[in-house]
Amino acid sequence: MNPNLPAASLAISYDDIAAARQRLQGVAHLTPVMTSRTADERTGATLFFKCENLQRMGAFKFRGGYNALARFTAAQRRTGVIAFSSGNHAQAVALSARLLGMPSVIVMPQDAPAAKVAATRGYQQGQAGSEVVLYDRYTEDREAIGRRLAEERGMTLIPPYDHADVMAGQGTAAAELIEQAGPLDVLLVCVGGGGLISGCAVAAHHLSPGIEVHGVEPEAGNDTQQSLARGEIVHIDTPKTIADGAQTQHSGQLTFPVIQALVKSIVTVSDAQLVSSMRFFAERMKIVVEPTGCLAAAAALEGVMDLKGRRVGVILSGGNVDVARYASLLAGGA
Amino acid sequence: MNPNLPAASLAISYDDIAAARQRLQGVAHLTPVMTSRTADERTGATLFFKCENLQRMGAFKFRGGYNALARFTAAQRRTGVIAFSSGNHAQAVALSARLLGMPSVIVMPQDAPAAKVAATRGYQQGQAGSEVVLYDRYTEDREAIGRRLAEERGMTLIPPYDHADVMAGQGTAAAELIEQAGPLDVLLVCVGGGGLISGCAVAAHHLSPGIEVHGVEPEAGNDTQQSLARGEIVHIDTPKTIADGAQTQHSGQLTFPVIQALVKSIVTVSDAQLVSSMRFFAERMKIVVEPTGCLAAAAALEGVMDLKGRRVGVILSGGNVDVARYASLLAGGA
Repeated sequence: MNPNLPAASLAISYDDIAAARQRLQGVAHLTPVMTSRTADERTGATLFFKCENLQRMGAFKFRGGYNALARFTAAQRRTGVIAFSSGNHAQAVALSARLLGMPSVIVMPQDAPAAKVAATRGYQQGQAGSEVVLYDRYTEDREAIGRRLAEERGMTLIPPYDHADVMAGQGTAAAELIEQAGPLDVLLVCVGGGGLISGCAVAAHHLSPGIEVHGVEPEAGNDTQQSLARGEIVHIDTPKTIADGAQTQHSGQLTFPVIQALVKSIVTVSDAQLVSSMRFFAERMKIVVEPTGCLAAAAALEGVMDLKGRRVGVILSGGNVDVARYASLLAGGA
Repeated sequence: MNPNLPAASLAISYDDIAAARQRLQGVAHLTPVMTSRTADERTGATLFFKCENLQRMGAFKFRGGYNALARFTAAQRRTGVIAFSSGNHAQAVALSARLLGMPSVIVMPQDAPAAKVAATRGYQQGQAGSEVVLYDRYTEDREAIGRRLAEERGMTLIPPYDHADVMAGQGTAAAELIEQAGPLDVLLVCVGGGGLISGCAVAAHHLSPGIEVHGVEPEAGNDTQQSLARGEIVHIDTPKTIADGAQTQHSGQLTFPVIQALVKSIVTVSDAQLVSSMRFFAERMKIVVEPTGCLAAAAALEGVMDLKGRRVGVILSGGNVDVARYASLLAGGA
């Protein structure tokens, strides 16, 4: 934490999160906070799991996507939104756009799982001007495609994390959690590009002063851990991990300064630890959590951090995992 | 439904369920009721899923077990409780006994899954006089073992379904559901020995007059459907189905008259339909439901019943399924 960094230099403040909560009221689910005696016995802590796997479209990404689109001007709404994503951000933007009555174009790789393409198209259904544009990721540049489409159609690009409205929307998850569970000593959040942890860190420090916020990355993709150590954004190759939502190569220009200011440390967990936590959620808590969604929990459940005697919030970020892949991971495959 | 049958002849009334709710207050979880736009679109109905898979020890059985044990006299509490079960009833009795500070003896087959034996022992931990007694189901008679132990130790036997206090406890699930969701047109409940459906039918007819209660059995084990048609309890061989909680051979002396009086029909679903529903819950609702727990839902989701335009309560009875078996079922195995 860097107490010398004035809050004014950060991309968002708690007011932005409070405003996002207003916009999401009655639109996003107030997801439950679950507890588990077994998890508490195993860790010696009191754990509060914020179930964003039970959020609309199955992940916290809906919060940020909807908050960003809800702030569009009338002119922006007419032309609509464009996003590149093969993951939860795609579905978040597609669904939010339909709910707000605007066209969405989602740029996805041709080899994205058919189920994800179908789900995204499903969320676009009934909204004129919406489509999924497929590209060949070996021969085409998705950013060039996006820029061309945005220019041709006058659409607004919403990136998956490096955007103040997206960050503020994601922060509403931690704000709700603290209201539901009461003050916390520690908050554990997964880290990909940093949209979720930056929003949550701002909310948590405001609502639970003295809280420690820790980020959790996959062992194979610890770019943010490296960036914090070096004091600048480190770029890595696309990491090989089952946590597909955290296969980012670097944190954002807007998210990183918030992480530097408000996140105490970044720890890492292995894919095997993610699978073990995924099994714990199926077996003991009867919920489906995707690999990326298990990052924060694994840091607690697998003993990566010593949390004895502390009240700990854990964000379960999502539950969108192909059912065949989920079965294979539960069964011990990869 | 037989309107000529006076309520006084049934084993339980709504007052018993109201009293059970008092006993369970602050002990059982008030489980959530989940909804799904996708499920509603698929069926044309408005479905309310009562999540007893999120109940303590993972199934509704905790309600009936605890209610029965909470009514023990001081003398009964001193000597404790005995139950035969390799399923959720075993864990319900073991946990309830410990919470109430009495010994429990659970008689289980030697070849019961190690995880179930361990879970039952886990629930007994710290309670003096509690144990799991294993028997060889090919050479020994569990009822004889139970009778001998009950006599020797003066323990009280609590059967899994054919007991008024057990039935009343299970009925609290439907009472809560109707309070949470509002009046319903239809209630769908799985049927094994009939403990859950008999309690729920009494609660539902009291709290939502005019409701239709339908039972759902596995195709291979439709003894209650046959019993209703014949007007007497039909015994069948142990059915071969993945719905292990509904592998009962006949309904009970106490449960069957309630079913005759208050249940409109029994429908059946196949194992393949159970697996399809189990996948739906994992994929779309991010929850783990055991095969037996999918019975009621499958009747709605798989189009077995026409529910268009109706408000339908669906009891998801439990979530206790061995994780390797769950993975294999999701992957398409048996």
